[in-house]
Amino acid sequence: MNIDYILPNEWSILEEGFDKSQATASESIFSIGNGAMGQRANFEEHYSGETFQGSYIGGIYYPDKTRVGWWKNGYPEYFAKVLNAPNWIGIEIKIGDEQLDLNTCAVSDFSRELNMKEGYLKRSFKATMNNGDQIQVESIRFCSLDLHEIGAIKYSVTPVNFSGSIQFSPYLDGGIMNEDTNYDEVFWKVLDIEDRDNDAVILSRTLKTKFYVATGMHISYELNGKEVHLPKTVHEQEKRIDYVSKANLNQGETISLIKFGGYSQSMNHPKEQLISQSQKVLYQAASLGFDTLLGMQKKAWANIWETADIIIEGDVKAQQAIRFNIFQLNQTYSGEDSRLNIGPKGFTGEKYGGSTYWDTEAYCIPFYMSTKDKHVARNLLQYRHNQLGKAIENAEKLGFKNGAALYPMVTMNGEECHNEWEITFEEIHRNGAMVYAIYNYVNYTSDYKYVPEFGLEVMIAIARFWHQRASFSEYKQQYVILGVTGPNEYENNINNNYYTNYLAKWCIEYTVENLKKVKEEFGADYKRVIELTNLTDMEVVNWLKVADAMYFPYSEKYGVFLQQDGFLDKELIPTSELSKEDRPINQKWSWDRILRSCYIKQADTLQGMYMFEDRFTKEEIEKHFDFYEPLTVHESSLSPCIHAILAASIDRMPKAYEQYLRTSRLDLDDYNHEVHEGLHITSMAGTWSAIVQGFGGMRNFDGVLSFNPQIPDEWSSYSFKINFRGSTLKVHVSHEGCTFTNESEMPAEIFVSGEKRLIKKDELVTV
Amino acid sequence: MNIDYILPNEWSILEEGFDKSQATASESIFSIGNGAMGQRANFEEHYSGETFQGSYIGGIYYPDKTRVGWWKNGYPEYFAKVLNAPNWIGIEIKIGDEQLDLNTCAVSDFSRELNMKEGYLKRSFKATMNNGDQIQVESIRFCSLDLHEIGAIKYSVTPVNFSGSIQFSPYLDGGIMNEDTNYDEVFWKVLDIEDRDNDAVILSRTLKTKFYVATGMHISYELNGKEVHLPKTVHEQEKRIDYVSKANLNQGETISLIKFGGYSQSMNHPKEQLISQSQKVLYQAASLGFDTLLGMQKKAWANIWETADIIIEGDVKAQQAIRFNIFQLNQTYSGEDSRLNIGPKGFTGEKYGGSTYWDTEAYCIPFYMSTKDKHVARNLLQYRHNQLGKAIENAEKLGFKNGAALYPMVTMNGEECHNEWEITFEEIHRNGAMVYAIYNYVNYTSDYKYVPEFGLEVMIAIARFWHQRASFSEYKQQYVILGVTGPNEYENNINNNYYTNYLAKWCIEYTVENLKKVKEEFGADYKRVIELTNLTDMEVVNWLKVADAMYFPYSEKYGVFLQQDGFLDKELIPTSELSKEDRPINQKWSWDRILRSCYIKQADTLQGMYMFEDRFTKEEIEKHFDFYEPLTVHESSLSPCIHAILAASIDRMPKAYEQYLRTSRLDLDDYNHEVHEGLHITSMAGTWSAIVQGFGGMRNFDGVLSFNPQIPDEWSSYSFKINFRGSTLKVHVSHEGCTFTNESEMPAEIFVSGEKRLIKKDELVTV
Repeated sequence: MNIDYILPNEWSILEEGFDKSQATASESIFSIGNGAMGQRANFEEHYSGETFQGSYIGGIYYPDKTRVGWWKNGYPEYFAKVLNAPNWIGIEIKIGDEQLDLNTCAVSDFSRELNMKEGYLKRSFKATMNNGDQIQVESIRFCSLDLHEIGAIKYSVTPVNFSGSIQFSPYLDGGIMNEDTNYDEVFWKVLDIEDRDNDAVILSRTLKTKFYVATGMHISYELNGKEVHLPKTVHEQEKRIDYVSKANLNQGETISLIKFGGYSQSMNHPKEQLISQSQKVLYQAASLGFDTLLGMQKKAWANIWETADIIIEGDVKAQQAIRFNIFQLNQTYSGEDSRLNIGPKGFTGEKYGGSTYWDTEAYCIPFYMSTKDKHVARNLLQYRHNQLGKAIENAEKLGFKNGAALYPMVTMNGEECHNEWEITFEEIHRNGAMVYAIYNYVNYTSDYKYVPEFGLEVMIAIARFWHQRASFSEYKQQYVILGVTGPNEYENNINNNYYTNYLAKWCIEYTVENLKKVKEEFGADYKRVIELTNLTDMEVVNWLKVADAMYFPYSEKYGVFLQQDGFLDKELIPTSELSKEDRPINQKWSWDRILRSCYIKQADTLQGMYMFEDRFTKEEIEKHFDFYEPLTVHESSLSPCIHAILAASIDRMPKAYEQYLRTSRLDLDDYNHEVHEGLHITSMAGTWSAIVQGFGGMRNFDGVLSFNPQIPDEWSSYSFKINFRGSTLKVHVSHEGCTFTNESEMPAEIFVSGEKRLIKKDELVTV
Repeated sequence: MNIDYILPNEWSILEEGFDKSQATASESIFSIGNGAMGQRANFEEHYSGETFQGSYIGGIYYPDKTRVGWWKNGYPEYFAKVLNAPNWIGIEIKIGDEQLDLNTCAVSDFSRELNMKEGYLKRSFKATMNNGDQIQVESIRFCSLDLHEIGAIKYSVTPVNFSGSIQFSPYLDGGIMNEDTNYDEVFWKVLDIEDRDNDAVILSRTLKTKFYVATGMHISYELNGKEVHLPKTVHEQEKRIDYVSKANLNQGETISLIKFGGYSQSMNHPKEQLISQSQKVLYQAASLGFDTLLGMQKKAWANIWETADIIIEGDVKAQQAIRFNIFQLNQTYSGEDSRLNIGPKGFTGEKYGGSTYWDTEAYCIPFYMSTKDKHVARNLLQYRHNQLGKAIENAEKLGFKNGAALYPMVTMNGEECHNEWEITFEEIHRNGAMVYAIYNYVNYTSDYKYVPEFGLEVMIAIARFWHQRASFSEYKQQYVILGVTGPNEYENNINNNYYTNYLAKWCIEYTVENLKKVKEEFGADYKRVIELTNLTDMEVVNWLKVADAMYFPYSEKYGVFLQQDGFLDKELIPTSELSKEDRPINQKWSWDRILRSCYIKQADTLQGMYMFEDRFTKEEIEKHFDFYEPLTVHESSLSPCIHAILAASIDRMPKAYEQYLRTSRLDLDDYNHEVHEGLHITSMAGTWSAIVQGFGGMRNFDGVLSFNPQIPDEWSSYSFKINFRGSTLKVHVSHEGCTFTNESEMPAEIFVSGEKRLIKKDELVTV
């Protein structure tokens, strides 16, 4: 996709004109979802051109056998694939005897809109068939936020220059493959197909994981807006069922097919009841009707936008971009189900597999905490607590003992399911993010009870891991952590990654601090947790030995902590001296060359400074920023947001804005030529943070909420809301100043540019 | 396989009794080959039990698509697989109506012999069929050293307790698969099957690489030792042809099938002539007859043993082991063809793929130089010169310029075809071994002309590589080599591997030294090479800057060079403190744990001290040996031999003998429980070195041949011969002393325990 392919608009993503070469990219960008399921913006009708069919169900995965060059002991045996689920959107259309196919007929007036305000996808076009017959088509589709198992399509066809027959074959297809498989295996088995008057259901089961899914459809028709009955023929094949109906139309008449479809699945219902559950919810949707359900959809999105929206004045592309990011995050994860998480591609593609990376804890938690009720972030924490047992097993496989836990790099069910040793075995810093997320949550929400109830167990298991993972260097007379990969994945198997060592020390200290607090304030929980974990005082003493004598590589010459041991042996050539032909280095350079270069894929040492900003002086941050930023190539979507936030915090607004631009329209403008594979969902939360924490300067350490608002020269104003401890605060920043409005009963105490303010209900405070 | 499964014998490998659980292990151990082709000791008759069918042709490979978890830029696209070739040995036998199958009938008096003195495989057994009929079977098989395209089988059956029909179905089968494939692909296409009176040929072609191979057989029968004609029926299938014949025998009569078979292939003949070539050579073998060909085989082996044999008195298992190693090395590589090389599994299995590793240069050259004519070692050097262009291309793919060459880690045709980035991209020390082999060869043979003719070009390309690969550390103010893997593959992506840095510096210096010498002594060659390579004086000056300021990690505390930067940060716990459950660590520990441990897979720093022993004092070697040996787990077959040699050189004979034992019966006693996958061919050369260079103390630096003989307490004597600059020297070492005999015209000047000796023809010198 080219920059500027998507038309600027404040509330919609717009595509005008049909460009086959953009087909798969647009399929990603116009994806829709409701947290429980979602899909790429594939056409309903047959399309013989290049397409990447994808429809996904939250929590449903397949353990694809790991593919490696040379097996190494301890490798996970499988790589959890996000599963492409049976197709419920399909509608084949015949005009006379010719199949409608945008790849073969003449297409005009094509437009596509992702209406983010109201939460639906709309497409309209004129198609001229080979015999000259022209039709006007309009399709509206959405995944219901109210009925999680339901999606709805209204597909309308109008003969423009003829009268004749239009044949509809709405269908369900269970015979789908994954785009991304290691061994071209089929992942689904179709068990049963049931058809009734207006609805049909395919019951299928995933191989190995044995998820059962009922994929259903309910069909009705309208002629010129009024319900009509069309006789149908049922075509049943082994894995597919079609309901074929024909309408004879006069020129100018409009026939609409209303298709409700979707998935009912065994994570939510007993598998014996899936077919009836599917029928039930389809009937419910049909009773409400398409228009009512769409009306509910608009209301549900209005509710989301009420808090989540960021309004940018004076820059329509920035406005469009930030809303796109917020929209996609909400389509991916609604926060209702602690068994689900935020996949890096959401429901828009299959790359990376798995659903859960450390991205959730490191990048997404702030967004969900601020824009939703606190139980949403709590559910994300809970997800990791649910999987603590598996994290302990995972650590045991790697030789750790005594309840030490290593959370997986990628997971669906708690088991590690990535397939590079450099990542799974060595990128252990992720364990720190698990504890940081608890710290972040407790700080922000003041819901400390999460710690005694669930968090402390997780902390203890992680502190045990760090204690065992560090080793004592006789040479340095300090504790070291050898053989790791930091957030910067352009290094592998390095020693003493500053970020990792810092988190290890902090995790131990924070765990000990909380052990004390829980002992004092939640005696019963303390007793339970100590019994459960068999934690002894002596063990804690030994943890602290490691934390107290942790080594951090430091350069006297530069006055900075070093990303790792030996970093200064590299040739430190700033990225500005790299030629265009060398970029991106991950496509132009061989892996060894990248590894021995000084170039940093994503914030690493600076990631730590971002997370623990309160522990560093502004001068220290400046020094580290000036040392590392020029060496950072930002070839991870998760990088520019952190640099944007730090740049703003040291008053480098032009740099902050430059970094913000890199992240906010990453997918819309397809900077990395990969949007056809799906969207970068988790980095979208970073974009939100770049505005709120970066430009807005929102911070929350030790429960103190502070702001230090700035505004890019390019904008006239921006505003956002946050939920904080029962109050909803609206922040509006313009070049004239900044105002805070408290929309809730609960007064909010905040610090603005260092000054304390108490903001009461409906009060407008200008600073 | 268990230790002691193979019966001790001085000249033969013996198995008595049929043990199905050992079937695949014995198939490896009893493998036969003639340098051009070879095969596992699969049964000729059908066997329904566990078996690993393998027959291989030197130089014939298939580029199997590389399998990796996550593609990294610069990866080789394929992994060259040693190809399992069409089966020519098969003979199905029916006794009455029942197929002979050792997995289903009762077997007694089973014995198998690999006669190493005369170069054949013999098997005999009694089989009792379900109806009680008993037969005696004897089969003799060999791959002819005289006719490289021919193998021969004499398969004799005698009814012991009945008279009745014996049906033979000798066949050719082109429908074979590889045991080791990445995507279960078929690698061969059968093009044609031709059958005549007594012979048949299948013409097949490898997919992708397009090697053409004619697999042939010639069939005749003997009754009680006299040729008989049996009528045959031809069964032709798509990829297989059987010649079915039946004999009616009286009790006690013996019917023998004589089957000549083998491969004629397109590396040696035009593909259009392969069928006729195959027929021709089969006819030639048949004309000679089985017994004559076997007689020639015995003579050819006698010739080999004449120089290559090592005689050990007082330890039959040691005697058997060293002959097994020498035998297998000679079966694998005869040295006649500079397009072939020494695969790590020879013709005994498929693991590791490829044919050529640095093993050849680092471990095998000394064996072939000493036991064969010098052109054999020269052919091995030539092999790398042949592939220089590909090595330059390989370096270009990784970003190197100006004719720098990186030889592949594994190759068939010069292209890199391994599939782990840690190895292909980073284990660059192999480049040094290419130059070292030239140095070694020139030193030993005094055939300096190889340098101006071929070697110098290789050296220049490699010096260029090291110059570009090193980088200047501002911090250290020295040149460093970052991101490598040394010979010790239990480290990845380390900085400043001592061995690698040492070789880099040495390669540059040696190249410059030879540039000078060639300029002075071989002006025309010098001119040609300089023109070819565009080498300038300035470039050489820049090389030397790197060599002169190369950094070597060193520990003042221990007085040793460190394997790499940061080695002393590891916990240095000697292997003696590892529990039995932890060994071997590559099966018991996860990869990350191995990486951060101090444990050394194979000689690394000590490998360098072995190769450049003349540059270190005995005290230095002792210090390094005492530092590294206790940390070495020897989980590479290439490790103990180097430690054995160094231990002997510092007068630690018990340690040397211990290490020798680990290497010499590695496969015969299956120490690592993996012999079923094939033999460790290249390490067998190390075993030879352990005796000759270790116990015998043979050294050759700067053209001076010296000995410092010692003998393990466990032996009464040992003796070996070496070819050295035209003389053939026999060395006999016993506890009483050491004698040298010169069996050639050319007097030999040697140093024994520091004293110079001139040994003339037939002279016996006792020291």
